Amino acid sequence: MSFRQKLNNIVKKNKSLLCVGLDPDLEKIPKYLLKEKDPIFVFNKEIIDATFNLVCAYKPNIAFYEAYGIEGLKSLKKTIEYLIRHYKDIPIILDAKRGDIENTAARYAKSVFEYWNVDAVTVYPNLGLDSLLPFFEYKDKLIILLIKTSNPDSKTFQDISIDGEPYFLKMAKIIKDWQYDNIGIFVGASYAKTLKSIRELFPQTIILTAGIGAQKATVKNAVIAGIDKVGQNLICNNSREIIYASKKSDFDQICRKKALGLRNLINKYIL
Amino acid sequence: MSFRQKLNNIVKKNKSLLCVGLDPDLEKIPKYLLKEKDPIFVFNKEIIDATFNLVCAYKPNIAFYEAYGIEGLKSLKKTIEYLIRHYKDIPIILDAKRGDIENTAARYAKSVFEYWNVDAVTVYPNLGLDSLLPFFEYKDKLIILLIKTSNPDSKTFQDISIDGEPYFLKMAKIIKDWQYDNIGIFVGASYAKTLKSIRELFPQTIILTAGIGAQKATVKNAVIAGIDKVGQNLICNNSREIIYASKKSDFDQICRKKALGLRNLINKYIL
Repeated sequence: MSFRQKLNNIVKKNKSLLCVGLDPDLEKIPKYLLKEKDPIFVFNKEIIDATFNLVCAYKPNIAFYEAYGIEGLKSLKKTIEYLIRHYKDIPIILDAKRGDIENTAARYAKSVFEYWNVDAVTVYPNLGLDSLLPFFEYKDKLIILLIKTSNPDSKTFQDISIDGEPYFLKMAKIIKDWQYDNIGIFVGASYAKTLKSIRELFPQTIILTAGIGAQKATVKNAVIAGIDKVGQNLICNNSREIIYASKKSDFDQICRKKALGLRNLINKYIL
Repeated sequence: MSFRQKLNNIVKKNKSLLCVGLDPDLEKIPKYLLKEKDPIFVFNKEIIDATFNLVCAYKPNIAFYEAYGIEGLKSLKKTIEYLIRHYKDIPIILDAKRGDIENTAARYAKSVFEYWNVDAVTVYPNLGLDSLLPFFEYKDKLIILLIKTSNPDSKTFQDISIDGEPYFLKMAKIIKDWQYDNIGIFVGASYAKTLKSIRELFPQTIILTAGIGAQKATVKNAVIAGIDKVGQNLICNNSREIIYASKKSDFDQICRKKALGLRNLINKYIL
């Protein structure tokens, strides 16, 4: 089944465009979990069990696991296996921001799709098409190209003006001509105008956006700007405000409340 | 000790600017090694033991380990530990091409420098300065920023013309103004002109170049273009032509011959 089909099914089932970022940090998770043998896995499992019918995807960012070395990566593997075993209809996006020349990119693609066994990955497009082909070969997976991030200094290189338009838009226009069905686009949620210009270029492409949730206005603007004409193909990620909403023993229920609130808020601006 | 000092010491000791890339692929390593419990580690160890006094650095590309999942990463850990135990004066560059927004970049930096315990890392600068600060904080480490790669399609995004100069050069000029002592630059060896323009911008910066070795002319042009005024601060990586020079049981000695030849060829164009 293609990523798009899998996404459409879960969006319909859970009435949700919300993606929850699984970015565990041992200094931020509820303290009582630290006595567990694998606190990271248990933390993720609690969040997943509390939100599985409110989301359209989960997005672990691999940096948060790599920070703990091989032990952290074992927790990631357990999390992915748990998701596949119990919630196999929910797509998993590995936020890994990989990218290298062709021969090496093939090794990253093998790692991401064959070892980690996820449904989608974030990738740097900056090395050009030949560096992306090994990813595109996995036709049922989604390759999410990083076009514009939402950090303040992203403007330094991404917004350099070329003939009156920013570099990232020039980049997007080149990507638009690539004939691969499994291209997705990442755009940070802080810039609604950017999201809008990318949506206009890519009317039916799946767009992943992140940093959504902090302010109601941001949610509204990002959803209106990013959604396609039939109210689909936008994945709205939030990590911190959901997964670190509480440090108490009922943190999973607080996560659920936060996820429910954000899911409903997003939906409000679609219909 | 700073990376620069460590590099200068080993360059002097081994009279070498050659870096050997440790990029193991189970389909390419000598078949007789496959019966070993950890073929990747043994392959690396044989290469290291045969070349340690001919190199100025080793550069494992983490993609080749990630392709084998956690088992592959265990082989990487063993390789790094072996290098630190037996050859602690040789810098290790982890070619990981990481990069993310600040909070997440801090997790990558922790992984690379605290868990993997290497001396340098390759990083995408495309998200801007705030995304790099967590790396720069490790003052004794070298943060090698990817400016220009050598794959054919690198031109698509890296060479887009801005006011008559390519994007990567614009990028390099912005980076030149950043006041951090531990910035290195990566430029592919295929384009001697590019290397020359980067060296002119960064007279004393450590430049890593790769893809050197295939042709004598490329070596000559790259070394002349990339070396600084006192014949230093250039790291010339070669992976495939050294580590896959033979599939026979004396492959380590063939590696040594290849490494010796390339080290001497590079030196020929410095003095």
